[in-house]
Amino acid sequence: MTIPVSEPTLSHLDESGQIRMVDVGDKAATTRTAIARARVTLNAAAYGLVTGHAKGKGEVLNTARVAGILAAKRCAELIPLCHSLPLSFVGVDFSLDDAGCAIDISSTCRSDYKTGVEMEAMTACSVAALTIYDMCKAADKGIRIDAVRLVYKSGGKSGEWRND
Amino acid sequence: MTIPVSEPTLSHLDESGQIRMVDVGDKAATTRTAIARARVTLNAAAYGLVTGHAKGKGEVLNTARVAGILAAKRCAELIPLCHSLPLSFVGVDFSLDDAGCAIDISSTCRSDYKTGVEMEAMTACSVAALTIYDMCKAADKGIRIDAVRLVYKSGGKSGEWRND
Amino acid sequence: MTIPVSEPTLSHLDESGQIRMVDVGDKAATTRTAIARARVTLNAAAYGLVTGHAKGKGEVLNTARVAGILAAKRCAELIPLCHSLPLSFVGVDFSLDDAGCAIDISSTCRSDYKTGVEMEAMTACSVAALTIYDMCKAADKGIRIDAVRLVYKSGGKSGEWRND
Amino acid sequence: MTIPVSEPTLSHLDESGQIRMVDVGDKAATTRTAIARARVTLNAAAYGLVTGHAKGKGEVLNTARVAGILAAKRCAELIPLCHSLPLSFVGVDFSLDDAGCAIDISSTCRSDYKTGVEMEAMTACSVAALTIYDMCKAADKGIRIDAVRLVYKSGGKSGEWRND
Amino acid sequence: MTIPVSEPTLSHLDESGQIRMVDVGDKAATTRTAIARARVTLNAAAYGLVTGHAKGKGEVLNTARVAGILAAKRCAELIPLCHSLPLSFVGVDFSLDDAGCAIDISSTCRSDYKTGVEMEAMTACSVAALTIYDMCKAADKGIRIDAVRLVYKSGGKSGEWRND
Amino acid sequence: MTIPVSEPTLSHLDESGQIRMVDVGDKAATTRTAIARARVTLNAAAYGLVTGHAKGKGEVLNTARVAGILAAKRCAELIPLCHSLPLSFVGVDFSLDDAGCAIDISSTCRSDYKTGVEMEAMTACSVAALTIYDMCKAADKGIRIDAVRLVYKSGGKSGEWRND
Repeated sequence: MTIPVSEPTLSHLDESGQIRMVDVGDKAATTRTAIARARVTLNAAAYGLVTGHAKGKGEVLNTARVAGILAAKRCAELIPLCHSLPLSFVGVDFSLDDAGCAIDISSTCRSDYKTGVEMEAMTACSVAALTIYDMCKAADKGIRIDAVRLVYKSGGKSGEWRND
Repeated sequence: MTIPVSEPTLSHLDESGQIRMVDVGDKAATTRTAIARARVTLNAAAYGLVTGHAKGKGEVLNTARVAGILAAKRCAELIPLCHSLPLSFVGVDFSLDDAGCAIDISSTCRSDYKTGVEMEAMTACSVAALTIYDMCKAADKGIRIDAVRLVYKSGGKSGEWRND
Repeated sequence: MTIPVSEPTLSHLDESGQIRMVDVGDKAATTRTAIARARVTLNAAAYGLVTGHAKGKGEVLNTARVAGILAAKRCAELIPLCHSLPLSFVGVDFSLDDAGCAIDISSTCRSDYKTGVEMEAMTACSVAALTIYDMCKAADKGIRIDAVRLVYKSGGKSGEWRND
Repeated sequence: MTIPVSEPTLSHLDESGQIRMVDVGDKAATTRTAIARARVTLNAAAYGLVTGHAKGKGEVLNTARVAGILAAKRCAELIPLCHSLPLSFVGVDFSLDDAGCAIDISSTCRSDYKTGVEMEAMTACSVAALTIYDMCKAADKGIRIDAVRLVYKSGGKSGEWRND
Repeated sequence: MTIPVSEPTLSHLDESGQIRMVDVGDKAATTRTAIARARVTLNAAAYGLVTGHAKGKGEVLNTARVAGILAAKRCAELIPLCHSLPLSFVGVDFSLDDAGCAIDISSTCRSDYKTGVEMEAMTACSVAALTIYDMCKAADKGIRIDAVRLVYKSGGKSGEWRND
Repeated sequence: MTIPVSEPTLSHLDESGQIRMVDVGDKAATTRTAIARARVTLNAAAYGLVTGHAKGKGEVLNTARVAGILAAKRCAELIPLCHSLPLSFVGVDFSLDDAGCAIDISSTCRSDYKTGVEMEAMTACSVAALTIYDMCKAADKGIRIDAVRLVYKSGGKSGEWRND
C-alpha cells in the first residue's frame, strides 16, 4: 500500500497541512439528501425499562428525536469546518431490536443549498443516541453507541452513494 | 427474565411515564470525574492521509480536540435533561491504532458541582469523532464511529465505577 | 362538534401520531412576512417607573428590542420543528397604553425563503416581553404577558391572512 | 397617583437611567424556587386534533416540555440582564381545559445559587407555549398565548411570594 | 534575551506542546474581578452622526452594551479553553472622546468561582466594539478597534494586577 | 466641518433615532467577500513561548483559527442588527512579526447572499485574537489587540472597497 505521506489531499487541509474550510461559493445549489444511522445497545434490564412501558418508551424516543433534530440544525456550531445552511427537512426515526436489546436510530436530512448534509445527519444520530444514554444511564452506565455512519447521500457533483 | 413493564423506574421518567429532569438540589457538591471513549475507523487510504503528514495530523486532531472541549461545555444545551454546570476541566486525547486504521478518543471531564459529568465526557468524544469524520469524509465517506461509552466515573453517592 | 380523534391531520404529526418536521424542499421561495403582537401589563407604580423617565424608558425598550431581534434570529434553536432560515428583516416596536399601564409589542419579520416566519415574529414578541418583565420585576412581580398572537401573514401558498 | 418620574429606582436602571445588571456577588446562596404559568387557547378544531389522539397529544406535549426545559437552561442567553446560573431542577407540566379549548402550562425551576429563577420559569412557559403554537398553527393560526406570569417564588432575601 | 524555545511553559500547553484546558478543580473560590478596555475610532462624519443625536447615541451605546453583556455570559462558548462559570456581574460603560472621534469602552466582570474573568471582560469589550462598528459602518467602513486590553484584575492566587 | 447633528442618517437608526435592522429583502444576491485584520502584540517572553516551540505554535494558532471560524458562523448571534446568512467560506490566517513580537491575523469571509460579510470577518479576527490572548495570558496579562479593521470588501451595490 502506498500512501501519499507528504502531500495531503484531504479537502480540509491545505498544501501546508493547515486546516481550511472548503469554499463552496462555486458549487451548484441542488437538492441534497443524507441518511445516517447509529445503534444504542443497553443491557436487558435497562432495555426492558425503556421499552416495556408504552408511554415511557414514547417519551424517551420523542425526547431523543427532538434533541437530534435540534442538533442537526446547530451542526455548524459544533463541527468547526462545517458550513451553516438552511435545512429543508430533518427526520429522526427509531426501530427496536428486542433480540439485541438495541435501539437503531436513523436520521434523514435535506437541503437545497450548495453543500452536502452528511454532518447534519451524523450529528442528529449522535445526539439522539447520547440523549437515550442520558435518560437510561441510571439503569445501565455501560450503554454503548456504535456504528454511527453515513448510509446514503445524494445530490451535488458526486451524485448518489450508498453504504448499507 | 422478568421486566417491570408497567412501573418504569428510570430516574428520568416519573410514575406516569413522563420524562422529568432529576432534581439535584439535595445532592452534595463533591469532585466528580468521568472518562468516556470512542473509536473512529477509517479506510487505509484516508487513515494514511490523516496520519502520514505530521502537520496535517496535528491540525486534524487539534481541531477535533477543540470541538470536543467546546461541546462538553455546551452539553446541557444539546441533551435535554442534562444539568448545566461549571466544569473545572475538560480534556480530549487521541491515540492512533495503525494496525486497525483507527483513532481512539478519550475524554476526561471534572466538576465540583452536584451531578455527574458522564454526559459531558460522552458528548466531547462524540463531537471530536464527528469532527474527524467531517475532515476526512472527502477521502472516505464510510468512516464509522464505534464504542462511544463511559469507562470511568467517580464522585457522588454512587462512588467509583470502571468499565474498561 | 365532531373531532377527528383517531386521525391527526396536524402538519407536524405523521399518521402514527409522531412528531415530524415539515419537508419544505418543494415549496417555492417567495417573500414572506409575519407580524405578531404581545401585551405586557404592569401595576401603576412599575409602569410609572419605566415610562416616567425618558432615558430609562428608552433604555428599557431598546434592551427589549435588541433581545427580541436576537431571539428571532435564533428561533430555530428554541422551537424544535421550526426551520432555520435567513431573515431579511426583524423589527420590534412598542406603543405605550398609559390608561391600561401596558406596553404593546409588535414584531415584523421577513424572509425570502421557503417557509413562513410566524414563529420568528412570535418569538421576538415573547422574548421582548420577557425582557421587560425581567427589568421591571423588582417593582412588580405580578407583571403579566398576554395576547401573544399572530396578526398578519403573507407569502407562500396560503397567501394573505389577517387577525387584528 | 404620584409617580416618581425623575428618579428611577428600578433595580436594572442606574441613577442616570442606563440599564445595568444587578451585582449579586454579595447575595447569599440559598435554595430558590420559582413557578410560572401560561395558557394557550386554540379553536375547537385544533384543540380536538391535538388532544383527541393519545399518541399525538403525548408527542406534542413532550416536545413542548423538552423545548421549555432547554429554554430555561439557556435563559441568560436570551434575557440580557439575567444571570447565568446552574439550575438544580426544571419541570414543565400541562393540564388540559377541555371546556376552554386551552392548555395550561406550569414550570417550576430551582437553583441553589445567588439569584432568583423567575426568568427561567417564565421563559420555560413561554417557549413551551410557542412550541405548541408552532405544531398547531397549520390548524389554527389564531392560537393565543395569555397569562404568562409568575405565581410563586421562594428563597433569597425577599422570602416567599404567591400570586395565584 | 533568552527564550525557552524548546520547553513551552504556557499554562495552556502541555509538555508535548498540545493545548490543554487548565484544571481549576483545586483552586479556591474567591471573589474575582477583571476590567478590560477597548477604543473605537471613527471618522469625523460618522462620529458626528452617532454622537450628535441624543436619542440615537443612547440607542447605539445601549445596543452595544447589551451585546457586550450577552457576549460576556457566552464567553466560554467562543474561547475554546475558557471555563464556563456563573458571573455575578457584568458592566459595560462608554466614554466619548470628541477630540479623538473615539468611543472608549470599559467592561467590568465579577465572579465568585474558581477562575479569573479576564476573558469575559475582554470579550464584552470586543463585542461591544464590533456592535458599534456594525451600526456605523454605513457611514465609515474604516472604523478601527484598538487597545483591547486588560487593565485590572483581582482575586485568586495572583492577587491584584493593574495596567492603566 | 458640518455634521448633521439632529437628523441621523445612519442606516441602523430610523428617523426618530431608534435602532433598526436594515431590510435586505430587495437587495440582490451576489458574491460578497470581506477581509478583516487584527494585530496581537505580546511581550518578548510570551512571544517566545508561543513561537519558539513548533508544535505549540501550531496548536495555539490552530486553536485560534478554529475559534475564529466558529465565531464567524455565529456572528449574527453576537451582533444584534447583523443578518444571519449562509457563509460559503471562512478563512483565518496568521503571520508572525518577530521584530514586533506580534501576530497578525487576517480573515476572509464569503457569501452569496444579500448582504455584506464585513461583520463576520471582523468577528473572526476578534475572536481569534481573544483566543490567543487567553492561551498566552499566563505569560503576559498585558497583551493588546489592536487595529481590528476591514481592509477589503467586494460585491453588492457599493462594489469594491480597499483600505490597506
